[in-house]
Amino acid sequence: MGHRRLIVCLIIVVVTAFTADAADPAAEIRQVLEAQQHAWNRGDIDGFMEGYARARSTTFVSEDSVTRGWDTVRARYRNKYSSAAKMGRLTFSEVQVTRLSNETALAVGRWHLQRADDQPRGRFTLIFRRLPQGWRIVHDHTSAAN
Amino acid sequence: MGHRRLIVCLIIVVVTAFTADAADPAAEIRQVLEAQQHAWNRGDIDGFMEGYARARSTTFVSEDSVTRGWDTVRARYRNKYSSAAKMGRLTFSEVQVTRLSNETALAVGRWHLQRADDQPRGRFTLIFRRLPQGWRIVHDHTSAAN
Repeated sequence: MGHRRLIVCLIIVVVTAFTADAADPAAEIRQVLEAQQHAWNRGDIDGFMEGYARARSTTFVSEDSVTRGWDTVRARYRNKYSSAAKMGRLTFSEVQVTRLSNETALAVGRWHLQRADDQPRGRFTLIFRRLPQGWRIVHDHTSAAN
Repeated sequence: MGHRRLIVCLIIVVVTAFTADAADPAAEIRQVLEAQQHAWNRGDIDGFMEGYARARSTTFVSEDSVTRGWDTVRARYRNKYSSAAKMGRLTFSEVQVTRLSNETALAVGRWHLQRADDQPRGRFTLIFRRLPQGWRIVHDHTSAAN
């Protein structure tokens, strides 16, 4: 019985390890992006910010500017999208995820904001890092259609 | 003597391995970017394109567009910068290189074109991959000041 229990325990450990290893980073990253859209579309910038690594090195690049640090990135979003009208309805599409290493991945896609007065849109390049709490954006370069 | 030779051989092997491992990817990546600027500033788009991985997956993102494939990226540059006047003088600055893994790295920086009629400028996010021929850009997201 002692041996059987040991064998059962070993099987559980091996299967768990294998399952964890086989977990698809692309699926997890898509979930993060889905959660970001849902948060945005209920006006929840803090929820949206959950997708970013809470680090001083987290970086957002757009046009000719670089915003560094999770707090500063959040402040930029809060300032630029200070009302539900400005936030509009966010949609991500054509998302492609490429693994760069065991701990890092690249996600490229389109963003689109449906607003009463305009419909800004463009592309994003995201670098994700696998952190203890899951895959999080460590670098975001976003551009808009002219 | 046999032993001494063996020891000398081992030392050479260890030092070589250590030196190869210690080769600074950031320095190599900066050299690629330097070479790109020199090529651009002598009107040599093919030389500039040497910085990119010669692959169908090589990607250039700007505004709301994605250009995929080394040939297509080159065609875009040739079309958009079809004369020395349009190419102007390119300068990269504030380049920061971050290693993502043994084989991949992120480079972020400013670009600036000095031209007779205007001076476009902005930021770039580059993902480099270590290939047999050296570090090459596999993904480029470039944005411009409005």
